[in-house]
Amino acid sequence: MKRRDFLKGAAVVGAATAGASALAAPAIAQGKRELKMVTTWPKNFPGLGTGAERLAKRITDGTDGQLTVKVFAAGELVPPFESFDAVSNGTADLYHAAEYYWQGKSKGFNFFAAVPFGLTASEHAAWIYHGGGQELWDELSSKFNIKPFMAGNTGVQMGGWFNKEVNSLEDYKGLKIRMPGLGGEVLRRIGAAAVSLPGGEIFPSLQSGAIDATEWVGPWNDLAFGFYKVTKYYYYPGFHEPGTALSSGMNMKVWESLSKSQQGAVKNAMAAENDYTWAEFNARNNNALDTLLKKHNVKLKKFSNDVLQAIGAASGDVVKEAGATDDLTKKIYASFIQHRKQSIAWSKLSDQAFANARLLPFKY
Amino acid sequence: MKRRDFLKGAAVVGAATAGASALAAPAIAQGKRELKMVTTWPKNFPGLGTGAERLAKRITDGTDGQLTVKVFAAGELVPPFESFDAVSNGTADLYHAAEYYWQGKSKGFNFFAAVPFGLTASEHAAWIYHGGGQELWDELSSKFNIKPFMAGNTGVQMGGWFNKEVNSLEDYKGLKIRMPGLGGEVLRRIGAAAVSLPGGEIFPSLQSGAIDATEWVGPWNDLAFGFYKVTKYYYYPGFHEPGTALSSGMNMKVWESLSKSQQGAVKNAMAAENDYTWAEFNARNNNALDTLLKKHNVKLKKFSNDVLQAIGAASGDVVKEAGATDDLTKKIYASFIQHRKQSIAWSKLSDQAFANARLLPFKY
Repeated sequence: MKRRDFLKGAAVVGAATAGASALAAPAIAQGKRELKMVTTWPKNFPGLGTGAERLAKRITDGTDGQLTVKVFAAGELVPPFESFDAVSNGTADLYHAAEYYWQGKSKGFNFFAAVPFGLTASEHAAWIYHGGGQELWDELSSKFNIKPFMAGNTGVQMGGWFNKEVNSLEDYKGLKIRMPGLGGEVLRRIGAAAVSLPGGEIFPSLQSGAIDATEWVGPWNDLAFGFYKVTKYYYYPGFHEPGTALSSGMNMKVWESLSKSQQGAVKNAMAAENDYTWAEFNARNNNALDTLLKKHNVKLKKFSNDVLQAIGAASGDVVKEAGATDDLTKKIYASFIQHRKQSIAWSKLSDQAFANARLLPFKY
Repeated sequence: MKRRDFLKGAAVVGAATAGASALAAPAIAQGKRELKMVTTWPKNFPGLGTGAERLAKRITDGTDGQLTVKVFAAGELVPPFESFDAVSNGTADLYHAAEYYWQGKSKGFNFFAAVPFGLTASEHAAWIYHGGGQELWDELSSKFNIKPFMAGNTGVQMGGWFNKEVNSLEDYKGLKIRMPGLGGEVLRRIGAAAVSLPGGEIFPSLQSGAIDATEWVGPWNDLAFGFYKVTKYYYYPGFHEPGTALSSGMNMKVWESLSKSQQGAVKNAMAAENDYTWAEFNARNNNALDTLLKKHNVKLKKFSNDVLQAIGAASGDVVKEAGATDDLTKKIYASFIQHRKQSIAWSKLSDQAFANARLLPFKY
């Protein structure tokens, strides 16, 4: 039944019975619209899959089910890395993922997830919301018929699990380490044999000695994978993903078909989950780090300044090259670099200076 | 049939059958509910007043006006610091403020805004959302008939503007500095003459020499106040408010009267604005710091480790005393301290270690 017919019919019913519920009920039923969300994560994967589920619930609850979002875990509707195409062509209505998975479409997407030695989570949010980042992202994604949003952040990731010490650059020569993406490219520039392995293959590869080291996420997710059982050292800080933004992209036609109020509700849900997911990573990492250190006696090691400096320089090169691949990506890179420069200057006086001061010896 | 005609028809039917008010037209009209939001901020005060306005718009837009929030700046409906009582007794429906303004009701409220040498913005969000903070806050505020939410954060505040150098603890003896709240109490413990002054009186007091120094917020808000014109040094890091949470409290009866969907929409709006406001402070501070340093040649100074260490120890005492004032506040303090301890351990490996590594000399 079309809306017009429905309204006419309802009015008749109302006239005949004076029953309020006869009017209200169909109006609500008609308003329900199911949206399919595809994700790149296994079902209920901590922080990522669960974040997608929460986002779906926020949209559904916040719109009283006018938009009812159904989540499909990786592979349930389409293979994980086809999520972008599925939303682009309308097979699905929205995705929950991290933008660097789409770097095959444009290297520019890397900047909307994380790049080596780039921005922290709070700096990233400042760039996206208030530093011109969202506008550039909109421009990039609109080429693919997608409207993108931030939808979470993992925070700074750890440097990784190592079976041998890496005290100097020499120790990186030929090091077999699992690190995908731009981070892997950085490590290859300093001589490591960086490889990409799916999550499930990492543990046995460490166990058999096929690889010497791996990065994953942070204490929360790393503890669950049990890497502490088969490696000797847990290194910090991670350089490759200093604050990995999660994201949700909606099919542009679907987005444009929403009422202003529905768009408002979706925006609120996205930003709310952006806040909530990052806070979850911080809280769970706090607890998991405690468990790793106290219960499993994990040995923490800090990368040497020599190593960090070489990795930093290589990161600058790799990110610059990624940022020079097409005209729009050049604009994205320029905006990102300008924001990064200012963010470093402010961080030196604020979070960083405060955190350093808090480590001075005094009782609290 | 147009919607208007439909509604008119329904109303007529309703009038005839005495079922009127339950029918569609009044139901929709009735569905629009105006909520009064009082605030502790001047109209459109950057980040604070504007954040309150955005929050109101998020709730209004996100509910299609079912909840239409009207904002009253400080003094428009009630004096700023009576906002809490106004919401508690139902004169207003919700407030936008910072919880330490209610410390006269319970010292426990300080922990839900900021305490000296306490938590950064991201650590605070982790505590509230995922570390038991919200539950304790609910328990405290419910005694006053209020349901509280995080609704923004200023990030780390700056140490302040000084007319003379403070290189040693000796330099703090008798120093006339504007710093309200627990931060002021900390400075009194190390010998300073800390005073509380309203915003509008700070500039002339610095100019006349009535005070030697002041804290305010950070580069964005400080630039607008023009303190660089009448002082010599801009000190960092701030210790007194390492991440000041803004908050919104709703009258409990109003909250309980909302539908599940409206509650969902309000929660999303609160968390979204929590994310967005903090990002705004970071982005605007980035730009304003640049202006202060390059255009106004402001002289930055870092507090000495001796000073920070003495302030840190005094902060620990002051916060501990505040946390021991009643049974519920003791529970809040214990939870806060436990979370702070774990947060420091994780920050050392993550944000802080990364930020420090990023300052090593390499080209990026």
